[in-house]
Amino acid sequence: MDPGQLQTSILTRGREFFAALGNETPSIFKKNYWTGKVMDWSMSHEDFKVQLFRFIDVLPYLSTEEMLNEHIQEYFARDENVPAVLRFGAKSAGIGGRLGMKVVGKTIRKNLENMALQFIIGNTIPETIKNLGKLRNKNFAFTLDILGEATVSEKEADLYAKNYMHLLEGLQQAQSNWAVLGRANSTLDWGHSPKVNISIKPSALYSQINPADFKGSVGHILDRLKPVYRKIVELNGFMCIDTEMRKYKEITFELYRRLRSDSEFKGYPHLGLAMQVYLKNSDRDIDLMLEWARLQHLPISIRLVKGAYWDYEIVVARQSGWSIPVYTNKAETDAAFERSAEKILRNHDICHLACASHNVRSVCSVMELARSLEVPDDRYEFQVLYGMAEPFRNALMKMTGRVRLYCPQGELLPGMAYLIRRLLENTSNESFLRQTFVEGRELEELLKAPDASISEAAGKTTEEYAGRSGSQSEFGSFNNHPFADFSIPEVRDAFNDAITETKKKLGRTYPLFIGGKEITTNTTVDSVNPARPDEIIGRVCQAGKEEITDAVSAAQEAFQTWRDTPPRKRAAYLLDAAEIARKRIYELVAWQVLEAGKQWKQAYNDVAEAIDFLEYYAREMVYLASPRYLGHAPGEINEYFYQPKGVAVVIAPWNFPLAISCGMCAAAIVTGNCVLYKPSNQTPVIGHTLLQILQEADLPPGVFNFTPGSGAVIGDFLIDHPQVSLIAFTGSMEVGLRIIQRAGHTPENQPSVKKVIAEMGGKNAIIIDDDADLDEAIPNVIDSAFAYQGQKCSACSRVIVLDTIYDRFIERLIGAVSSVKIGPAEDPANFMGPVIDRSAQKSILQYIELAGQEGTILYCSDVPDEGYYVPITIVNGITPEDRLAQEEIFGPVLAVMRAKDFDQALEWANCTRFALTGAVFSRSPEHLQRCRKEFRVGNLYFNRGCTGANVERQPFGGFKMSGIGSKAGGPDYLLQFMDPHTVTENTMRRGFVPLRSEDKWIE
Amino acid sequence: MDPGQLQTSILTRGREFFAALGNETPSIFKKNYWTGKVMDWSMSHEDFKVQLFRFIDVLPYLSTEEMLNEHIQEYFARDENVPAVLRFGAKSAGIGGRLGMKVVGKTIRKNLENMALQFIIGNTIPETIKNLGKLRNKNFAFTLDILGEATVSEKEADLYAKNYMHLLEGLQQAQSNWAVLGRANSTLDWGHSPKVNISIKPSALYSQINPADFKGSVGHILDRLKPVYRKIVELNGFMCIDTEMRKYKEITFELYRRLRSDSEFKGYPHLGLAMQVYLKNSDRDIDLMLEWARLQHLPISIRLVKGAYWDYEIVVARQSGWSIPVYTNKAETDAAFERSAEKILRNHDICHLACASHNVRSVCSVMELARSLEVPDDRYEFQVLYGMAEPFRNALMKMTGRVRLYCPQGELLPGMAYLIRRLLENTSNESFLRQTFVEGRELEELLKAPDASISEAAGKTTEEYAGRSGSQSEFGSFNNHPFADFSIPEVRDAFNDAITETKKKLGRTYPLFIGGKEITTNTTVDSVNPARPDEIIGRVCQAGKEEITDAVSAAQEAFQTWRDTPPRKRAAYLLDAAEIARKRIYELVAWQVLEAGKQWKQAYNDVAEAIDFLEYYAREMVYLASPRYLGHAPGEINEYFYQPKGVAVVIAPWNFPLAISCGMCAAAIVTGNCVLYKPSNQTPVIGHTLLQILQEADLPPGVFNFTPGSGAVIGDFLIDHPQVSLIAFTGSMEVGLRIIQRAGHTPENQPSVKKVIAEMGGKNAIIIDDDADLDEAIPNVIDSAFAYQGQKCSACSRVIVLDTIYDRFIERLIGAVSSVKIGPAEDPANFMGPVIDRSAQKSILQYIELAGQEGTILYCSDVPDEGYYVPITIVNGITPEDRLAQEEIFGPVLAVMRAKDFDQALEWANCTRFALTGAVFSRSPEHLQRCRKEFRVGNLYFNRGCTGANVERQPFGGFKMSGIGSKAGGPDYLLQFMDPHTVTENTMRRGFVPLRSEDKWIE
Repeated sequence: MDPGQLQTSILTRGREFFAALGNETPSIFKKNYWTGKVMDWSMSHEDFKVQLFRFIDVLPYLSTEEMLNEHIQEYFARDENVPAVLRFGAKSAGIGGRLGMKVVGKTIRKNLENMALQFIIGNTIPETIKNLGKLRNKNFAFTLDILGEATVSEKEADLYAKNYMHLLEGLQQAQSNWAVLGRANSTLDWGHSPKVNISIKPSALYSQINPADFKGSVGHILDRLKPVYRKIVELNGFMCIDTEMRKYKEITFELYRRLRSDSEFKGYPHLGLAMQVYLKNSDRDIDLMLEWARLQHLPISIRLVKGAYWDYEIVVARQSGWSIPVYTNKAETDAAFERSAEKILRNHDICHLACASHNVRSVCSVMELARSLEVPDDRYEFQVLYGMAEPFRNALMKMTGRVRLYCPQGELLPGMAYLIRRLLENTSNESFLRQTFVEGRELEELLKAPDASISEAAGKTTEEYAGRSGSQSEFGSFNNHPFADFSIPEVRDAFNDAITETKKKLGRTYPLFIGGKEITTNTTVDSVNPARPDEIIGRVCQAGKEEITDAVSAAQEAFQTWRDTPPRKRAAYLLDAAEIARKRIYELVAWQVLEAGKQWKQAYNDVAEAIDFLEYYAREMVYLASPRYLGHAPGEINEYFYQPKGVAVVIAPWNFPLAISCGMCAAAIVTGNCVLYKPSNQTPVIGHTLLQILQEADLPPGVFNFTPGSGAVIGDFLIDHPQVSLIAFTGSMEVGLRIIQRAGHTPENQPSVKKVIAEMGGKNAIIIDDDADLDEAIPNVIDSAFAYQGQKCSACSRVIVLDTIYDRFIERLIGAVSSVKIGPAEDPANFMGPVIDRSAQKSILQYIELAGQEGTILYCSDVPDEGYYVPITIVNGITPEDRLAQEEIFGPVLAVMRAKDFDQALEWANCTRFALTGAVFSRSPEHLQRCRKEFRVGNLYFNRGCTGANVERQPFGGFKMSGIGSKAGGPDYLLQFMDPHTVTENTMRRGFVPLRSEDKWIE
Repeated sequence: MDPGQLQTSILTRGREFFAALGNETPSIFKKNYWTGKVMDWSMSHEDFKVQLFRFIDVLPYLSTEEMLNEHIQEYFARDENVPAVLRFGAKSAGIGGRLGMKVVGKTIRKNLENMALQFIIGNTIPETIKNLGKLRNKNFAFTLDILGEATVSEKEADLYAKNYMHLLEGLQQAQSNWAVLGRANSTLDWGHSPKVNISIKPSALYSQINPADFKGSVGHILDRLKPVYRKIVELNGFMCIDTEMRKYKEITFELYRRLRSDSEFKGYPHLGLAMQVYLKNSDRDIDLMLEWARLQHLPISIRLVKGAYWDYEIVVARQSGWSIPVYTNKAETDAAFERSAEKILRNHDICHLACASHNVRSVCSVMELARSLEVPDDRYEFQVLYGMAEPFRNALMKMTGRVRLYCPQGELLPGMAYLIRRLLENTSNESFLRQTFVEGRELEELLKAPDASISEAAGKTTEEYAGRSGSQSEFGSFNNHPFADFSIPEVRDAFNDAITETKKKLGRTYPLFIGGKEITTNTTVDSVNPARPDEIIGRVCQAGKEEITDAVSAAQEAFQTWRDTPPRKRAAYLLDAAEIARKRIYELVAWQVLEAGKQWKQAYNDVAEAIDFLEYYAREMVYLASPRYLGHAPGEINEYFYQPKGVAVVIAPWNFPLAISCGMCAAAIVTGNCVLYKPSNQTPVIGHTLLQILQEADLPPGVFNFTPGSGAVIGDFLIDHPQVSLIAFTGSMEVGLRIIQRAGHTPENQPSVKKVIAEMGGKNAIIIDDDADLDEAIPNVIDSAFAYQGQKCSACSRVIVLDTIYDRFIERLIGAVSSVKIGPAEDPANFMGPVIDRSAQKSILQYIELAGQEGTILYCSDVPDEGYYVPITIVNGITPEDRLAQEEIFGPVLAVMRAKDFDQALEWANCTRFALTGAVFSRSPEHLQRCRKEFRVGNLYFNRGCTGANVERQPFGGFKMSGIGSKAGGPDYLLQFMDPHTVTENTMRRGFVPLRSEDKWIE
């Protein structure tokens, strides 16, 4: 195959293709239609596009006329021109009046629904079958996809699978009436292709799909996929497994391999797999799949697509700290498409190709590649989306005679979501259809070979963000530690290995560490595995008053030099510690799984947050270390800078045993204070890992002292010690208030008033507005309320649901929550584990009992017998007066409150003594804007769960009874550990003044 | 006079002048001499110039070899090349070794002293007279000036006057031996000019010179000036009154007029006045002086100079917030010189001109102007400085035959200060001498007419300072309210008028103000004038528990809307209030003079600071109101912003009765809290003026409530009130600690932990290093310790003096302090007034008694009988254990402590429970650098007093027992009144993400 000749023939074929297009415009772009006008406005007004797409997203939820009209006002009232575009076709004039609005609202809804319907083959099975018949009459084959892939519960997954079965039954009956396409002497279309062809999304078949639980996920999906495939085989059809988000890719590939090689189906060849070439790994993935097919002697079929989750993949990667998995330059994707197609066509003996693209160049290159490689017609076909680019599909039909349309079918609600994906595709700057039909680019440009060398010229541009810490080039800019990517097998292995290794180290004894020396005491405490209380994690020496006295002295002595150690040097210790923690991350995670009962992801995030605190506070200190120069009068230099306070006591909780400990200690240390660290007696071994890290970082003796002990024995003694300047505490409100009160007393012999930084409890609410996207809200509420057994101060313990959406929400919530697994954190299949100890278990069980008295228990899960388990409990009928609505439970107990309207929901959300976190699921811009001010909590989240704050991005902490002091991981946090100093130098001597650039010398 | 012809003849004359200069170089620029080398290095290395001039400044104080060598190391060790330049002429090599240093140090000292001596005619009277004789032999006349104008006490002023008398006696004897210059047939030089001619600096003749006390200053100076002038008349000499800093200009002019028109001296014409043309007002001043002369029929004599305090005047203006009084473009000054010279020459019948300049162009234009105006030779003469520009003076002599040299005489110590002025003049970019002899500019350029139209092209450049608040273009950048310029008669009149007017308003009754309504109570308190306790300032209603309860309710109600009032709007109220205060400033000042016993300047500064707080916090709030966007991951928007806490109680002190009250209230209000303001019961009427201002600014009802009352009755009740969220307190440590302790208790019904911001006491020290400039240190210590009777938390109450300088310091300090006047604040002649009340008086008197027991009383002033006066007391022999060294006295009692070395001084400075302010007078870069870190106080000042912090430039506040919370008037202050909030929005819907410019989208 001569490359030059190939390019020439592609070009020739391309010109032919364009000629076949004629002057036809796809209906979506036709400007004399409503749709065309709206598309046109969207492409020229980015703000409107955002509002329109978001409005389409919420539209199916706007069940009343009032809701509809309110949302139209909120989304579009800002721009005068917009309603005119939108209401095109409405008989009434003006958008202002009540009556006018009614008509306009109805028209807009009708117009948008029609727009969605354009892409959907049918809402019901009969309608679908009727329309498929029409399509086939026009010689188009189809592949059918049922809309609505978001399943939050096993019930919903069952329903999704059942819908396929119903559909297949309908198709089974219908296909006998359908004439074959192409050759008449076959029962197969074109002589080789089943008439019935479906596409299926595997993630919809298991509500608990989870890359960390790879085996479980594959198993559960197969359980539901096999019956569908069995039916396909029965009716001699074709099934393609769609590939969705990258995180499920390996699961999907495994499903394909398992199903294809299953002894039951081995002989049946009509199973396809969609593969996305925008993934940078796609070359390797295709190679591996072809290799597998050859090795297994099993012919396969690949649908080659470019990929539809581009924005999503970038966002997830960016937010997770991963390298971007997709090509960010469209030309690279286009080049990968041609490269992959060639690879498959060269292997046409073992792999059938479905070329799915709307790009003339891509399609023509497949045609010409196939021709030059002499691939038989039955080894490749072409697919396009139903409802898109009619001229294109007609031209393709003319050119190839073998076109399959990808047809979504089903209900309008999920259909609107599908509409957005299609609109995005059509309006993207990179869209071939837009470039062809709207912008009318030159043929040569559209048909030229994709030049992948021009990297990073994507449509969305980047500006380098020069943040506050970012400006500290010395240490580089701050980035959160990446999340664990459980789709990578090596990551999963590392977790398992570390847990195994760590188990070998259980039961050791840990000494104190004071003034750089290990100190062993006679009193020890046993720390146990909450899932197996007989398993002792470690025995930890306990400090008494004598050891505390020694530790304060050691800290005070160390303070004399540490206070004046250059801040950059102090920061460097933190960065060293971060590096050590990164190296030991899986070991640190394993301790958390075993001692704290944290799930893999929860444990990893805790360690990652600890690393973040080290990295962030180091940079913040460097930033704060440069004196600020104030004023601009010549003849004086005013420097403003900070100095440390003295000896700091850090009293840490067990629920974020490394992150919070490390955050408080790192802040105290880097600002120049010396620390006595008292870890929680529930997780003292994890506390000791912090010591190990800081020891390895080689902090000077006395700067960090490890003094675990009983609160009853040493708590007050620590707090009352006159040489202690600062107490950083995270824990319960009761203990916090006691510390604040005691620290408020300043005896004569005490050099300074004690500073207390206290993070206390929460009683956090999530509001579910009547237009909330429940596909998002349900999993987020479950995660916020029950992840790590609800043992987070940020956990959701109240969900306030608007009356109109209440029943729908509850039904799906209960369905979802009944789908999760409970058991030891070691097994990634378990969503929830045991609570921290017997006393916590007892207290939570008492609250569950109370729940039954104050309200009605809607759900109460089963739990294992061994270990400190408590059931997931959902109780409704709770009102603000109830203790369930006011007291922090610190367990997996969720109170559901039914609010009559948004005002009441907001009032209830604010009506506890706490003010820590909160969330709102709403698609009303006005409600969100109002909450921004009036939902008064420290950390508020919109359309996201209320846990999982990231250092720097979501500085964490609340007010009222939730704490005093400024937010951890935020720009004001370190200020609390220091006193500000001003030094003013009069620089004028004998009328002589050196000048600085900041001086305002003359006007 | 044809202007074109004049310019031509000036140019001709100029060429002639340059020809007369020949190839001679002034000795100071000769590069083969040490001086020339050092000058050369200075002109090309700005950093070295700064270090060199500062080193010269301190050199006379380096009494031991050790001090000398240490300072050489500290000033010059950074730059390798520098010592080589400096030690030129030293026989030893290397600067490193001990022996080497010894030689090098000696050589450097000798070289610099020689450099200074070059400008001084003689150190002693005999030497001076001998050298004057030599000068006269070379046909040069002289005017003699005694070095050492800084007099801190009346004793020193007496000595200065006495030195002139001695000198004149010597000259009287000598002049009979001197041949006249010029014509032989006269007893006068050149036939018209006295042989003896002196110049005198009036400020040196009265240590308490003070523009606010105009009459007193003029009177006291005349008392010492008249005997000198009488002697001049006796010996038939000439006296010129020098004009110094602008602030003394009007006093100086008045002295000239008084002396010239005094009946005793009216007939004697030989009295001159120096006038500075760099002052923008100089045209008007000369006009007025000529007018006066004509009106009085008294011929006068003006020495026209350009002015020698250019840097100083700009710095003072900038630091005071005044417009710059001098031309900032050299050409403007040069043009003013020619303009003024012409004006005087045109009035030669009534005014003699002494043209004092080193600028060839200026001098030639005077020559040609005089010629063209046909001014007789006896009506003008030329003056140059002794030791400067020898070629210039010789050429001038050749050209005019009438040259007088300005000859400083006296001791080397003040001579070094004079040297710096001369070096500055020689090395300035604008220096004619530098341009002529060093840079060798073209004749035409040097001789061209000064073009004053090119404004602002001065040598020192300006960069616009874009500060934090400055970036808020909406309200403009923050500037401190200007200081009162007491040299302006209208300002002095305004003070007197306002006091007179305010006295008419005494004795009124003031109600409470709660929820927007005036509330009268039966209990009132009488506020009295501390200087006249019988005079009742006002009767102020007292709040009881009932009124407090009402006020808290009103504040809470107002909070519901005030909290969400846009921050920009809240800030606008503050700016309105500032505008109101500016309009009423003299009235506000008058209340302070009468009710608080504040001196004019102290009272004005208090009101100015109140205005500053309003302006600064308004801008800070606008800055803080813009949410910070955190992180740069796409798909989420993280906003970080602040919300208010609730009801704030402000408990204010009497010592800064408006400033501190206003600062705390303004901060609380602008951040969105609602306030109960309890002013001090010593100054409740001033407290009421704050209410008046805020009422006029039209704050919504309930936002600000005026609730004066007795601490014993309502103090605890206010603090304990569960609906109070925040307490801002300024006052004593005892009360502060009590508040902190009580507020630390959080009862069940209280919604939030109380935030306390407390500014408490101080026990502030000033360290006098062995190289301190006592001319600066003495007045600054006196001002810091005794201004406003020492009733400032920032006041100096300990001065720690190094052993080697101790005796010299004490002697001058006692001298200075005995020179001040004590009496009512109404009279600006009084430096100190009464303390606030009888109880303060009693307490301070007890400390004075204790002072006599713990140490030795060095000085105790007399005080008036009526009013709450206490004497200024200075006690020595105090060591750190003494109560005098530890307890806050809050009165004019200063403990002097003799420290053996700097280590001990620093240790003592830090050894109290307080850490508020401190100061160091030192010229050791190393000691200052060390103090920056180790002198641990909130506000530290170098070579400046320890009081008088300015908003924004010197954020104010300390730690240890001096307070908790961040600095008032600083960038962190407002944060304390608010809670931080984070709002995170997940912006991804259906895989669609709007992009922001901050997002890091692709790499």
